[in-house]
Amino acid sequence: MKIAVIGAVAAGTSAAAKARRTNKDAEIVIFEKGRDISYAGCGLPYYISGVTPSRYNVVMNTAQDFEEKYKVDVRLEHEVTEIDSDEKILYYQNLVNGKEGGYEFDKLIIATGAAPIKPPFEGIDLENIFTLRSVESADQIKDAVKRDDVKRAVIIGAGLIGLEMAESFSELGMDVTVIELEDQVLPPFSKEMAGLVEDHLKEKGVELILGDGVDHFEGEGKVAKVVTGSGREIEADLALLSIGVKANSKLAEAAGIEVGDTGAIKVNEKLETNIKGIYAVGDCAESKDLLTNKDVWVPLGSTANKQGRTAGENAAGGEAKHYGILKTGITKVFDLTVAKTGLDLEEAEAEGINAAAVKVKAHNHASYYPGTDDIHLRGIFDRKNGVIVGAEVIGGDGSDKRIDVLAAAIYNRMTANELFQVDLAYAPPFSGPKDAVAILGMVAEKKL
Amino acid sequence: MKIAVIGAVAAGTSAAAKARRTNKDAEIVIFEKGRDISYAGCGLPYYISGVTPSRYNVVMNTAQDFEEKYKVDVRLEHEVTEIDSDEKILYYQNLVNGKEGGYEFDKLIIATGAAPIKPPFEGIDLENIFTLRSVESADQIKDAVKRDDVKRAVIIGAGLIGLEMAESFSELGMDVTVIELEDQVLPPFSKEMAGLVEDHLKEKGVELILGDGVDHFEGEGKVAKVVTGSGREIEADLALLSIGVKANSKLAEAAGIEVGDTGAIKVNEKLETNIKGIYAVGDCAESKDLLTNKDVWVPLGSTANKQGRTAGENAAGGEAKHYGILKTGITKVFDLTVAKTGLDLEEAEAEGINAAAVKVKAHNHASYYPGTDDIHLRGIFDRKNGVIVGAEVIGGDGSDKRIDVLAAAIYNRMTANELFQVDLAYAPPFSGPKDAVAILGMVAEKKL
Repeated sequence: MKIAVIGAVAAGTSAAAKARRTNKDAEIVIFEKGRDISYAGCGLPYYISGVTPSRYNVVMNTAQDFEEKYKVDVRLEHEVTEIDSDEKILYYQNLVNGKEGGYEFDKLIIATGAAPIKPPFEGIDLENIFTLRSVESADQIKDAVKRDDVKRAVIIGAGLIGLEMAESFSELGMDVTVIELEDQVLPPFSKEMAGLVEDHLKEKGVELILGDGVDHFEGEGKVAKVVTGSGREIEADLALLSIGVKANSKLAEAAGIEVGDTGAIKVNEKLETNIKGIYAVGDCAESKDLLTNKDVWVPLGSTANKQGRTAGENAAGGEAKHYGILKTGITKVFDLTVAKTGLDLEEAEAEGINAAAVKVKAHNHASYYPGTDDIHLRGIFDRKNGVIVGAEVIGGDGSDKRIDVLAAAIYNRMTANELFQVDLAYAPPFSGPKDAVAILGMVAEKKL
Repeated sequence: MKIAVIGAVAAGTSAAAKARRTNKDAEIVIFEKGRDISYAGCGLPYYISGVTPSRYNVVMNTAQDFEEKYKVDVRLEHEVTEIDSDEKILYYQNLVNGKEGGYEFDKLIIATGAAPIKPPFEGIDLENIFTLRSVESADQIKDAVKRDDVKRAVIIGAGLIGLEMAESFSELGMDVTVIELEDQVLPPFSKEMAGLVEDHLKEKGVELILGDGVDHFEGEGKVAKVVTGSGREIEADLALLSIGVKANSKLAEAAGIEVGDTGAIKVNEKLETNIKGIYAVGDCAESKDLLTNKDVWVPLGSTANKQGRTAGENAAGGEAKHYGILKTGITKVFDLTVAKTGLDLEEAEAEGINAAAVKVKAHNHASYYPGTDDIHLRGIFDRKNGVIVGAEVIGGDGSDKRIDVLAAAIYNRMTANELFQVDLAYAPPFSGPKDAVAILGMVAEKKL
């Protein structure tokens, strides 16, 4: 049995590792275009700020370590150029010496990831305009910051990565401006909750320009200015584009593998594509929304790991499923934890749910124990039966706990009353006698 | 409508407050034997150590505040001496002036709490031998520590409160010895998990004497020595008995109210006793084990609050239920979080479950983000269907999150596979791409 994996970041390496654990004898080969494997993409903002001190920390495995540990052949700087899905051969080019070759496989796992969107703005090719995706791109940013003594950074896009980088650049002592086309930060969040994040960013000295986008960049050789659609000019020593990513699905599409409306590869619960024996996982693949049963594309490291594991087991002869996702996401924005799971109000209504949004403010733990902080919770409930279908949590320490409990609640179709009933752990350092989740349930029950 | 409440700590005040919110017009009277209301019993170890600086912090409401806020008549230092459940009258004594009186009620909520067990050891009445229950008892301990320059504290009983006080006394600079009759600390925990706590206590300089109990106390006026059953003599300037509590159910029992085998008052889902219109809540009342459907007695602040609220609503004319508990408990022991929910292996087996214990060690969050710590998880699974029925979590920051997610999982009868499926939030400061809970699920699935 020969298993080929294209891509060696989270999903690809998870897949290869699990395939090996499932099948001791299979030949497993990973083809990776870049020079690093198994790096922690989510850790790059912390690598750039220095919170995570060394490159070694975010590159979890070297190819050699991985090869030894899992008896997998890792071919770095090998770009797969074509998949022949009928003949089950992939063709690649060695980027170092230009040589081409082919590899016959029995099973193939596509983990080609996603790439940052980089629109053809005027001036986009000026120096010090970056996107952040690979460790190499992080290294380039770190080099530029050091080399050019960057004082003013402009971040385009106020999504998760944009805001993580606002913190990262601030920690490096830069003046940071964030530009967002929508009229709020974190567009997937409700306006009322996003407002809390906006206030926090301003407190931390980040300048926000909302409802405005990039028109073009100016500078001589290096970027010096970002000019917005409304004509505003912002001086910049460095600009970071973080306006989203698109799935790397072209290679698969050219091989007759079905791509969904999301632009990512369609898969079933086994992570198999429309072609038997060919799987797709991670940021290039769709997933199922557990609440709407629709195919969705929410590229996140947690999903990539699970999909990789599942496909690796299946490719190696096992039987595993990944049911889908709640689109749970979390980030740290300076001192705030910002998290979301399930449906928002608009999504719920689009599903025909008579939905109500309920917002409460609670404490992370007993007020008399040091380190008390506010936690804001917003739940989306189905008025018909009181079931919670979505939540946002923004606040201090302990917010991550509440989003995870709510994710479990949503997964299990719990009602507002059950949020009160479930017996969560109480001691003063950890919660109040009525946990924030119970309080959300109580208030929701009353309101519904 | 006249509602009487006996007891003004967590359950009694919750009941009175909710009764008022449910019924604007009812006359509500609370009879409280002591001088404080609504104090945070769980906060007393932190009040003693000074982590919680002032008495004001743990006494959440003064009687006057509470009276004004809820239009409730709070009668402090009024001990209820008899309940006439036929005539619906309670008799009380004013402890200040000795006067007696009666109060006719339509509905009665009994929240008489629990009292520390204090066996008739020889020397038990020596000075500086304490139990910890009320703010007054905490004040007495604080006074003794200050007055007598206490250097050596002996704690009898290694349950939750005993270990919290070991930390508290250590923070005050004392040498602390803990004596426990069982051969492990935290007897409800499995031996392997309790061992982690024992190691941690020793690291922190606490001396542990396991499998040994108090025989008698020695001293002249004040305690000077604790002598154990095995004949060991431990010098002590102060001794704290924390070997458990018993429900204060005598008053109810004398009124014909049914008391269970646990020694606490039997109640239904509405928190009503066998006598219509008379409710019992908090540490004097039983609860239902959600997993075994048996009546259990696990006196905890979280349950007291929920029961109080539920009974308050019902007494005032509403319709509320408290389904029961998972016996979820948590405590902080120095730098360790120690938590348990659901059934342990022995309890599961006693229920006829073919149970398996699965232990994993995981990280609280990404290894490259500062503050990484170990979390040990032990799940009890039903081999028949893979359902998780119990869990223990011991470790660093983030352990509280995992016990709460597992409590939600147990509440919802989730399987090991579902612990992997549920879409928990991932970002480097909060978890790994595969959360500790998912790892427990994966390992359990493989083992079962």
